[in-house]
Amino acid sequence: MSTLKGAAIIGQSGGPSSVINASAYGAIYAALKSGAITKTYGAQNGIRGVLDDNLIDMGMEDPKELAYMKYTPSSALGSCRYKLKDPAEDDSDYRRILEIFKKYDVRYFFYNGGNDSMDTCNKISKYCLKNGYECRVMGIPKTIDNDLAGTDHCPGFASAAKYIATSLMEVYHDARVYDKGMITIVEAMGRNAGWLTASAALAVEKNCGPDLIYLPEVPFDLDKFLDKVEKIYKANNKCIVAVSEGIKDKDGKYISEYACADAAKDSFGHAQLGGLASFLAEKAKERTGAKVRGIELSLLQRCAAHCASQTDIDESFEAGKAAVENAVAGVTDKMVGFERISKGGKYACKIKLFDLAEVANAEKKVPLEWINADGDGITDDFVKYALPLIQGQTKLPIEDGLPRFVRLKKVKAKV
Amino acid sequence: MSTLKGAAIIGQSGGPSSVINASAYGAIYAALKSGAITKTYGAQNGIRGVLDDNLIDMGMEDPKELAYMKYTPSSALGSCRYKLKDPAEDDSDYRRILEIFKKYDVRYFFYNGGNDSMDTCNKISKYCLKNGYECRVMGIPKTIDNDLAGTDHCPGFASAAKYIATSLMEVYHDARVYDKGMITIVEAMGRNAGWLTASAALAVEKNCGPDLIYLPEVPFDLDKFLDKVEKIYKANNKCIVAVSEGIKDKDGKYISEYACADAAKDSFGHAQLGGLASFLAEKAKERTGAKVRGIELSLLQRCAAHCASQTDIDESFEAGKAAVENAVAGVTDKMVGFERISKGGKYACKIKLFDLAEVANAEKKVPLEWINADGDGITDDFVKYALPLIQGQTKLPIEDGLPRFVRLKKVKAKV
Repeated sequence: MSTLKGAAIIGQSGGPSSVINASAYGAIYAALKSGAITKTYGAQNGIRGVLDDNLIDMGMEDPKELAYMKYTPSSALGSCRYKLKDPAEDDSDYRRILEIFKKYDVRYFFYNGGNDSMDTCNKISKYCLKNGYECRVMGIPKTIDNDLAGTDHCPGFASAAKYIATSLMEVYHDARVYDKGMITIVEAMGRNAGWLTASAALAVEKNCGPDLIYLPEVPFDLDKFLDKVEKIYKANNKCIVAVSEGIKDKDGKYISEYACADAAKDSFGHAQLGGLASFLAEKAKERTGAKVRGIELSLLQRCAAHCASQTDIDESFEAGKAAVENAVAGVTDKMVGFERISKGGKYACKIKLFDLAEVANAEKKVPLEWINADGDGITDDFVKYALPLIQGQTKLPIEDGLPRFVRLKKVKAKV
Repeated sequence: MSTLKGAAIIGQSGGPSSVINASAYGAIYAALKSGAITKTYGAQNGIRGVLDDNLIDMGMEDPKELAYMKYTPSSALGSCRYKLKDPAEDDSDYRRILEIFKKYDVRYFFYNGGNDSMDTCNKISKYCLKNGYECRVMGIPKTIDNDLAGTDHCPGFASAAKYIATSLMEVYHDARVYDKGMITIVEAMGRNAGWLTASAALAVEKNCGPDLIYLPEVPFDLDKFLDKVEKIYKANNKCIVAVSEGIKDKDGKYISEYACADAAKDSFGHAQLGGLASFLAEKAKERTGAKVRGIELSLLQRCAAHCASQTDIDESFEAGKAAVENAVAGVTDKMVGFERISKGGKYACKIKLFDLAEVANAEKKVPLEWINADGDGITDDFVKYALPLIQGQTKLPIEDGLPRFVRLKKVKAKV
């Protein structure tokens, strides 16, 4: 494969994580060093930045400052939730993208996001191919939800898992401190896949975890839940529950919808969830008369860079770097992912490439055999899977006792 | 002063913090080393443990294990919210306490808590004095609320402040990531004193803080608030607000009561559904049509040991240790506190003793001159005050990527 010379665009999309910038930085770092890539552009707010001709020149940033990206949460280039149409129905967005690619001589496109972003990536890649425009397109995965197909795990998941397990261990201590009874419901993210909520099992492993864990993978029965809570509360005077925002009843209706009259939908048609912890806490109070507390981990779980896994940060960086290196070497139309390998019984992981078409819009859920028979607990298989991923305390730079996050100049790109 | 030989009781009371155990450990550590103190008992669930003859023998714990207390959040000995009656009205509790003190030959009583705990401490001290029972009574302060009188600051405040500022910096990045508009309301603890919410100003200082900060010290006007939010949102497409749970209107009514009233009116009738943050977010949505998010920091802010200030941990330990050392040296009826001293322009702090009667039930609020004229921002005076207190990352021991918290045997005390 001959060297393809041209500019690169890096964009970020979807809900951010505490390590998505580590991936973007890995890609930017490798692109700036590459002899093939003539210019490295950041697309502001993902694909919207391309459509709006709103690119920034990453080469204008101070390399030392840029390095802070590795430890800065959320998407430093901005994100979007823009869904590209099917090009067979309406190709106006694609024509515009191609126009911008041509304007800046873009020959490399890297998109850093979750399922929907891989779909965007896949569509652009196929459109370029079809229209004979040579552009190497690579997906760099990111999702705290850990639900991308193929890859062993997704950058961002482990840091959120570490935060959730740590916070649950702390809440465990707090929620049991009084001589009076108490029921505590903690809600984690995850619409369809329960990976994040399952990470509560890491706290259980340390004997400081919740009594019950509910994932969206199995139908949730409110009465059965209340029976269990009541039983545990009567026996221990305390009950702690971890619950996924996405739990549904046997008919597939979100339990949060019980509490939320009109669930607004985002532009991908996902129901906006929330208020579940308070709803379940209130139900538990009605049943038991106990003092209750509902805690929603909310945005905190996906942006808690101060509690990120250094393993996750390093792997995320490597994923971004590998995307660029592979593209420059001639690879296109792939998502970078991880394969777990064992080195003398110790966890290790190597980069593996997956077809974009294969991962776009597929969803990987927690295996049912990792959930107990009652649907309210997680087996040790999950702990074995997740524990290596959360190892290592973040090397986040600290200034005046607080995180030192990146401050980009964001100089507008010029042709 | 002659040496007073006898046993010591250490108890913890009130809402826990991430460093209250550092203080208790300081006291236990010093007591176990003291030649005067014959036995070191922990009262389970504070004064209730004394009343119920539910003491544990701290000398039976492995000293190495005990050392983990310094980094374990919440009250390892258990807490309570039991308020002693006025002995003039009903002295039955006091007679019982004296009975237990005599049973175990208790000559030292250390109570680790906030305002109410200092009141308990004061009442017990006065009762012992009045009844000619020699017992040295010392209060060891703790409160994330930072509202104890006399002392420059309270153990526990700085760690919560560090967590709040850190989390707000992270939420700032997350809440601004999309190209679409967003209003985010973050609720911190503090019923009457706004110290915790004011710590959002530390994030502002780093240019990653909220646009508006509301404390209970100044009356809250819902319309004025909505005008401000709307103005900022229209200008920036984003608005982040930090608000204290204890904000009240000009008539002294808690704004959270408005929220409860609203919730009670809705068709679901769940009084606890949606707290203050959700209520204000909903109001902001009604006014602006923006996407909104309410985040309640809840228990997380007071138990986040993983984000504690090492300065706070070390000072908390010293406070506990100083309580025992001073008592053994003959001091009684005092609360240990801090005096801020400047060493060559650098922050330093030394132990200072305060009369229990002086601090019991008094409340120290944020000075009004540290709040801006509009009542929605904090001046630099607060930042100068709080910044030295949050320095130092916790040395919390980590095992398998998660905190290693103390595991006490809790062997029941025998006479």
